[in-house]
Amino acid sequence: MRRLDELTLADVAVRDGLKWTQVGPGVIPAWVADMDFPPPEAVREAVARRVATDLGYPGWLDDATVGPLAEAFSERMETRYGFQADPTLVRAFTDLNQVLQIILHLLTEPGDGVLVHTPTYNAFLDTLRVMNRPPVPMKLTPNGETWTFEQPADVAGAKVLLLVNPHNPTGHCFTRAELQGLAELAERHDLIVIADEIHADLAYSPGAHVSFGSLLPDRTITLTSASKAFNMGGVHCAVAHLGHPAVKAALDAQPPHLYGAAGVLGVDATVAAWRHGDAWLAEVLTILDHNRKLIAERIPADVRYQIPAATYLGWLDFGIPDAAGRLESEAGVRLNPGPLFGAPDGFARLNFGTSPPILEEILTRIGTAMPRISADLS
Amino acid sequence: MRRLDELTLADVAVRDGLKWTQVGPGVIPAWVADMDFPPPEAVREAVARRVATDLGYPGWLDDATVGPLAEAFSERMETRYGFQADPTLVRAFTDLNQVLQIILHLLTEPGDGVLVHTPTYNAFLDTLRVMNRPPVPMKLTPNGETWTFEQPADVAGAKVLLLVNPHNPTGHCFTRAELQGLAELAERHDLIVIADEIHADLAYSPGAHVSFGSLLPDRTITLTSASKAFNMGGVHCAVAHLGHPAVKAALDAQPPHLYGAAGVLGVDATVAAWRHGDAWLAEVLTILDHNRKLIAERIPADVRYQIPAATYLGWLDFGIPDAAGRLESEAGVRLNPGPLFGAPDGFARLNFGTSPPILEEILTRIGTAMPRISADLS
Ligand SMILES: Cc1ncc(COP(=O)(O)O)c(C=O)c1O
Ligand SMILES: Cc1ncc(COP(=O)(O)O)c(C=O)c1O
Repeated sequence: MRRLDELTLADVAVRDGLKWTQVGPGVIPAWVADMDFPPPEAVREAVARRVATDLGYPGWLDDATVGPLAEAFSERMETRYGFQADPTLVRAFTDLNQVLQIILHLLTEPGDGVLVHTPTYNAFLDTLRVMNRPPVPMKLTPNGETWTFEQPADVAGAKVLLLVNPHNPTGHCFTRAELQGLAELAERHDLIVIADEIHADLAYSPGAHVSFGSLLPDRTITLTSASKAFNMGGVHCAVAHLGHPAVKAALDAQPPHLYGAAGVLGVDATVAAWRHGDAWLAEVLTILDHNRKLIAERIPADVRYQIPAATYLGWLDFGIPDAAGRLESEAGVRLNPGPLFGAPDGFARLNFGTSPPILEEILTRIGTAMPRISADLS
Repeated sequence: MRRLDELTLADVAVRDGLKWTQVGPGVIPAWVADMDFPPPEAVREAVARRVATDLGYPGWLDDATVGPLAEAFSERMETRYGFQADPTLVRAFTDLNQVLQIILHLLTEPGDGVLVHTPTYNAFLDTLRVMNRPPVPMKLTPNGETWTFEQPADVAGAKVLLLVNPHNPTGHCFTRAELQGLAELAERHDLIVIADEIHADLAYSPGAHVSFGSLLPDRTITLTSASKAFNMGGVHCAVAHLGHPAVKAALDAQPPHLYGAAGVLGVDATVAAWRHGDAWLAEVLTILDHNRKLIAERIPADVRYQIPAATYLGWLDFGIPDAAGRLESEAGVRLNPGPLFGAPDGFARLNFGTSPPILEEILTRIGTAMPRISADLS
């Protein structure tokens, strides 16, 4: 097996998911949020062991908390983030967007506002649109080093604060002070806080991630999964910690199997990642740390970029119309277009969750094409 | 690897799911509906291949039908049962009981009746109770060879016909004539038909299973999964074919991710089972066919038993109070008690999805204990 930091384009050609199969020949995909690394060996082993022992109903079938999952989650939150999660408040779902939709469906009405930082993770923006829960934006502004935002003067009509921390697409880790301000806002306006912390394990410095549940436990639904940090977005096993009693009560009042149940393969893969995947994660973070800095070195000077504090996502302001479209046709790299995240089309999101050699090639292609694209435009 | 028909108690000791871990030391479990066989090699390979290639978002992520699953399901229904399923009407869920709860939740009200044959699969009975959808029973009566039932004179108040075919716990395969009668009833009373055909692949003679969707496509929601025939009840990937337009419309009107989404491991395992598991299934059916007859030979004469036409479930009338409880303490075998299925406690369900040597031991234990139990009672 090749080392993760030496993977070549030929090595990753095995990948047959959305990221690699939806691009034309020769185009390098740097769009949808999957990395190009094989998952931790512990995940492979856990899945193989499950198939070899028993694929039948698990011992935790009638345990709504999914015992081993609740324990692994709670231990990890406490050890890494000092958030004392209560395992009895844990529920399993298939994915985070499902839980967002469930909470909006059960506890809000069409027209109710949802406070979000903008730009915003595209799938959540789709959910707000399709469910008609208008976003109440808190615009993130780059200031050279980090991102700042102001709380909106008027949050009337908002029922929910949807906090994506670490933030997608900017990679910002909200500071304790920022979060404390948001906690006060949530208290003042009686908001339900949905804290998506799926990228927490991808923060580059220890302590950078502050878990919102540790600040405001009784108002917060903490959402996470192993799917981003351990690169298993298709596995579909997500955790919700139901700190907010009204949300828990609303869910408990539903028929018990209405929202489905996690499967044994997903649960075992997730528990294995959380309990035995940290050496792999450290290796991956070393690569990603290198990559995030490489972009700063290699991206053309007129492209605006701030090194993210977490995630494998770079948020780039190319300052040209239809940046992602032009880069795909002119540079042969696919990024996610800014408008997906509610930003102008000069922006694009670059997924750098790949090996340095592949990222070098992506950056070379962008660096070569940009002068040509700019010349064409002027 | 030991042949499936030679598995010993020591071989199956590896199993760590609900069935084997919830019984006391020395008790042989013959209760919850999992078999003791390892899954088809094709399932193991498909899961290993998925982990080795890509656990990220799959190519079918934005396809509500889950393309490969819809195709494998539709081909199988047509080839084996002559039911021309429409792949565009396929949706994936985690389990069958989830779909039952969704349909009852979206299309019926508390108090609305649900027509069912009794006895009834215990988890469905739990759903009807917890959701307050009173069962309107059609009692199955043994007549030496098969099972008969009468349609209720009064189905006023019933909105749904919940057809479990092949039937759990009796193993009855409803005849075409019986199903035609039910189809007329459904038409007459404008019933939504939920046809659970999860045990179809476990029918002992080809042609014994008639798929209800082939009789009344526009009224029928067909439910199935690979979980029973291929012994992967914990995997959680189920298929619903939304033949009934009102059910499809009600589902389509919900937020798109509200009910979750199948994961790649479950989908690949299911597709592999359906496309490449039939040699394994044939081997298992040979064993089960032997087993169902062995019970008839070996069960004490005063225990009432009819050889099932499908499933690995034997429905036994022991004619003694608390039959399952006594057999667990006196014979060291755990069966499912009749009352779980809405039957008197002289009944119990025997899961014979195991190797002949293990079933022999179960039957020996029952045969030895029964005279003692009867003597104690008299
Ligand atoms: C902020 C954020 N939340 C959630 C997810 C994953 O959502 P889901 O679990 O619904 O696939 C992602 C994936 O990229 C993400 O970036
Ligand atoms: C008739 C019937 N339907 C469905 C199931 C499985 O239900 P689920 O998919 O909810 O686990 C079983 C399991 O034994 C069954 O016997």
